[in-house]
Amino acid sequence: MPDRAKVNRQVLLTARPAGIPDTEHFRIVESPVPVPGDGQLLIRNLYLSVEPAMRGWVSAVANYSEPVAIGAVMRSLAAGRVEASNHPEFRPGELVTGWFGWQEYAAVPASAVERRVTETDLPLSAALGVLGLNGITAYFGLLDVGALKTGETVVVSTAAGAVGSCVGQIAKIKGCRTVGIAGGPEKLRLCREAFGYDAAIDYKNDDLDAVLGVACPDGVDVYYDNTAGPISDAVLRRLRVGARVVICGTASIASWDPIPQGPRVERHLLVKRARMQGFLIFDYAARFDEARATLAEWVRSGAIRYREDILEGIDKAPGAIAGLYRGENLGKRLIRIAPDE
Amino acid sequence: MPDRAKVNRQVLLTARPAGIPDTEHFRIVESPVPVPGDGQLLIRNLYLSVEPAMRGWVSAVANYSEPVAIGAVMRSLAAGRVEASNHPEFRPGELVTGWFGWQEYAAVPASAVERRVTETDLPLSAALGVLGLNGITAYFGLLDVGALKTGETVVVSTAAGAVGSCVGQIAKIKGCRTVGIAGGPEKLRLCREAFGYDAAIDYKNDDLDAVLGVACPDGVDVYYDNTAGPISDAVLRRLRVGARVVICGTASIASWDPIPQGPRVERHLLVKRARMQGFLIFDYAARFDEARATLAEWVRSGAIRYREDILEGIDKAPGAIAGLYRGENLGKRLIRIAPDE
Repeated sequence: MPDRAKVNRQVLLTARPAGIPDTEHFRIVESPVPVPGDGQLLIRNLYLSVEPAMRGWVSAVANYSEPVAIGAVMRSLAAGRVEASNHPEFRPGELVTGWFGWQEYAAVPASAVERRVTETDLPLSAALGVLGLNGITAYFGLLDVGALKTGETVVVSTAAGAVGSCVGQIAKIKGCRTVGIAGGPEKLRLCREAFGYDAAIDYKNDDLDAVLGVACPDGVDVYYDNTAGPISDAVLRRLRVGARVVICGTASIASWDPIPQGPRVERHLLVKRARMQGFLIFDYAARFDEARATLAEWVRSGAIRYREDILEGIDKAPGAIAGLYRGENLGKRLIRIAPDE
Repeated sequence: MPDRAKVNRQVLLTARPAGIPDTEHFRIVESPVPVPGDGQLLIRNLYLSVEPAMRGWVSAVANYSEPVAIGAVMRSLAAGRVEASNHPEFRPGELVTGWFGWQEYAAVPASAVERRVTETDLPLSAALGVLGLNGITAYFGLLDVGALKTGETVVVSTAAGAVGSCVGQIAKIKGCRTVGIAGGPEKLRLCREAFGYDAAIDYKNDDLDAVLGVACPDGVDVYYDNTAGPISDAVLRRLRVGARVVICGTASIASWDPIPQGPRVERHLLVKRARMQGFLIFDYAARFDEARATLAEWVRSGAIRYREDILEGIDKAPGAIAGLYRGENLGKRLIRIAPDE
């Protein structure tokens, strides 16, 4: 093992952003590779995940989880290899995902492990995207919260993203008409060619309202909302009776403090007997395996395709979240910090 | 029968309001009492109903029902007596409710009859309020859309109104903590003394946000929303995890054209895994009898009390809706146009 493996590079949160975290809120430090304690594992991280939800994890505003402490390693899911194990259920060499943080090495209790990666026929990186929280979020958000029915019209915002692209393809598998909203010609091409949307709308260059009317002549049954903001405002005007709006993310809102203004939604919901509902994927933890098994089959059969946007090296981590919010990624954003094998 | 009974006074819609209908949108005309045709009934209306929903019925904006035509009798539920019947299932003297319009006499097909009034031990006027759409709307909105559970905290806006007062009392019957929001000391007193709210908030005179925090120290599980606007904005900041917001009405919004701005709701719904849902009571028509039977028992046992605001004479009809929106009524607003008996 070369000497530099003895150093653990870590990304620490050093300031609490008002809105979207960026390079100035993090610092990269070097420390010795930790020694796992009793019952602990030493994980060598191979891929770090980058999620829009990280904005919430570092926010001081009330949230579903404790804010990451100032000075702590940035919270993150990662995929890695067990380097050493003081726990009877794990042995060196196993591939796992878990809450290992933005760092090269993590000494963690077994409870930090999310799962063993068993889809050895698929790339390890998929365990953090289409077979990870992104795919699972698409699955339960659309099928459970959205209560999708065959033949309905489904509109998805951030349609080419890690979650959105899965939503569109699952809706297609379920026999729905799918309309994707994304920004720029590259993402539009992905929507049409890779993810099979029946219609794709470029919110940056199209007349959103007019094109939406053409794409959804009978209105919208399910709106899977990853953005909020003006995109949602336009979709809400086209809800059908009994529509469901699944609130998954708010990517278009730069800051929720103070809460930004927008058109009030009550009349849409009343006249269309519609509902808007937020959800948190961790509430479905007991059913993750069910979703993952189904998603893996769909990936193997080609019914679900996915794209990845892999940044090389942990130096890329501090600016990676802000880049997501600027929409610069094509597909699931990951940071590769060591070769797979 | 005196001569004047041969004249039918009718309230016609003469102009389409942009917001809330008022005297200038109606005209009272006199015409001969109609003669019922084949299969028709002649109804002598005794009470006319006045509903916040009438704003929607006269609006040209897309809605759940055809707009009332300009020049037509104002659409309304009414309670009346069958004066003459050319239909085998009805006979003169029966008391009925139905879509008889704002007029003294109506010649209507049997399909316009909503039901025979069978609660002869209770005042006829109750058939248009607590045992009519108001009570039924409270019942299904709270129990079905709101999915109320014992022990929860329920906040109601327009808490002293025809629907709101029922919501609060049903929630109390179901073992919940009830917090009513209403305007002015008279309504507050009603909330506390007649309708049994655990806490009552005067949105006109209290510091709504502060008092709401005291009244709901653990947050809000169900918000039964009859107002939208700043009252809703304050309640939404206090939702608990898993909260349900029942959108029943938007009394505080003077006009929806253009749609007014307000704080965006998505983050509340996301972080609290909450839902907002609109409903239309006519979607529950097949279950009205179930609700009405339960409500009548609650009224008889004293578990539900109700207040009425009865205006005398059809001349009061044109201005009666705007008065509701000004909050000048205490309880269910009706217009009595003939003595009960």
